[in-house]
Amino acid sequence: MVLQYEGTRYKGFQRQESTDNTIQGKLEELLFKMTGSKTEVNASGRTDAGVHAAAQVMSVCFTTGMSCYEILQYMNAYLPEDIAVLQVNEVTQRFHARLLAKGKKYCYRVHNSAIPNVFNRKYVYEFAEELDLSLMREAAGLLCGTHDFKAFTSAKKGKKSTVRTIDSIQIERLGDEVQFRFVGNGFLYHMVRILMGTLLQIGTKERRPEEITTVLESGLRENAGPLVPANGLILEEVYYS
Amino acid sequence: MVLQYEGTRYKGFQRQESTDNTIQGKLEELLFKMTGSKTEVNASGRTDAGVHAAAQVMSVCFTTGMSCYEILQYMNAYLPEDIAVLQVNEVTQRFHARLLAKGKKYCYRVHNSAIPNVFNRKYVYEFAEELDLSLMREAAGLLCGTHDFKAFTSAKKGKKSTVRTIDSIQIERLGDEVQFRFVGNGFLYHMVRILMGTLLQIGTKERRPEEITTVLESGLRENAGPLVPANGLILEEVYYS
Repeated sequence: MVLQYEGTRYKGFQRQESTDNTIQGKLEELLFKMTGSKTEVNASGRTDAGVHAAAQVMSVCFTTGMSCYEILQYMNAYLPEDIAVLQVNEVTQRFHARLLAKGKKYCYRVHNSAIPNVFNRKYVYEFAEELDLSLMREAAGLLCGTHDFKAFTSAKKGKKSTVRTIDSIQIERLGDEVQFRFVGNGFLYHMVRILMGTLLQIGTKERRPEEITTVLESGLRENAGPLVPANGLILEEVYYS
Repeated sequence: MVLQYEGTRYKGFQRQESTDNTIQGKLEELLFKMTGSKTEVNASGRTDAGVHAAAQVMSVCFTTGMSCYEILQYMNAYLPEDIAVLQVNEVTQRFHARLLAKGKKYCYRVHNSAIPNVFNRKYVYEFAEELDLSLMREAAGLLCGTHDFKAFTSAKKGKKSTVRTIDSIQIERLGDEVQFRFVGNGFLYHMVRILMGTLLQIGTKERRPEEITTVLESGLRENAGPLVPANGLILEEVYYS
């Protein structure tokens, strides 16, 4: 299934013990109602509290007499208005939305104006300072490729690898908005938002593009920029081979 | 001043006795705080409960030592996040936002898909039935010009004229969305939304484009189509000479 959601009022995608204020919680509750049996949702990855998705992918395994279109209609009839199912497709049992995901595209939207935007306010980070796009693009170039992104995650030290590959970072201005698109094979906890905090420091000339290399090499979170707000972030696409 | 607002949680623009849940109420409250004296807001016209504005114009008369930019910054700092001031300009005392308005442009957005749109849901009317744009454009042509629009208003019979001029109605499809833009010298109470309800009946072939002429001539509200929801409507521009 392909899902769209506004993350504003949820504590992220992943189900939690104590609360049902999660996207996964809402979906599993509804799938239980629809199928009559406990059904687990596997998404391509979790999104954090407040983060949105234009096309999150999830795999679900259940038996039903309903067609894909009937499932889509049933689910959209019962889901809250900030979650929608865009597509339902039958796949082989070997398909797994997380394990088979080859890459993802995230977009971070910055509303770069002294005047707040009323209509997009749930989807943009209000940032009034002037931004130099060419400096940020220079830094973005240094971030692309395969690196250890330990300095760019809030995850606690563990045994898991923090090496990831960023294929591209596109930065473009559309009127008052600056959009940043990150494509890569996977992103660590808070990684896009810390990359953004660092790029914005470079865009305002608070630090130089070259520093990216030093920060990457240090592997220290405190050397990277701040974590920017979740509401500007949206998962745009998940890639499968 | 030029204003932007999302109408969702307000009982319309115009101040009411019993509640302060109006855009005008919020603005006058803040202007009182800013200037220290009771200040009346004159908008180009009221918008109904739930209707949005991309660029509403209002005139206000007060004495202050603040510059236009300081007023803009002060107001945006204190206004709720669903109202913003886009521009503040000093004008002659003869300027009056309502009395001098020569015309207006409204846009009505229809999300024409079986799958609801999560991100635009506050700004579009979800309408899944297939629409024939050329039939609606034919009907739109019959609505343009100077007519008595008595059949297309919810206003009670009064002495005021219900004659208005519509300069143009543009209908265009953008992906899943169909946008209707109405430009005219003025619009009666509920007029755009009743015109929309009628155009949608024509788009679904429930009635023929030619019927527009009969409805206009009858002057009877019951001959026109239904009132569509407020959330799809947005005031886009106010014209002055």
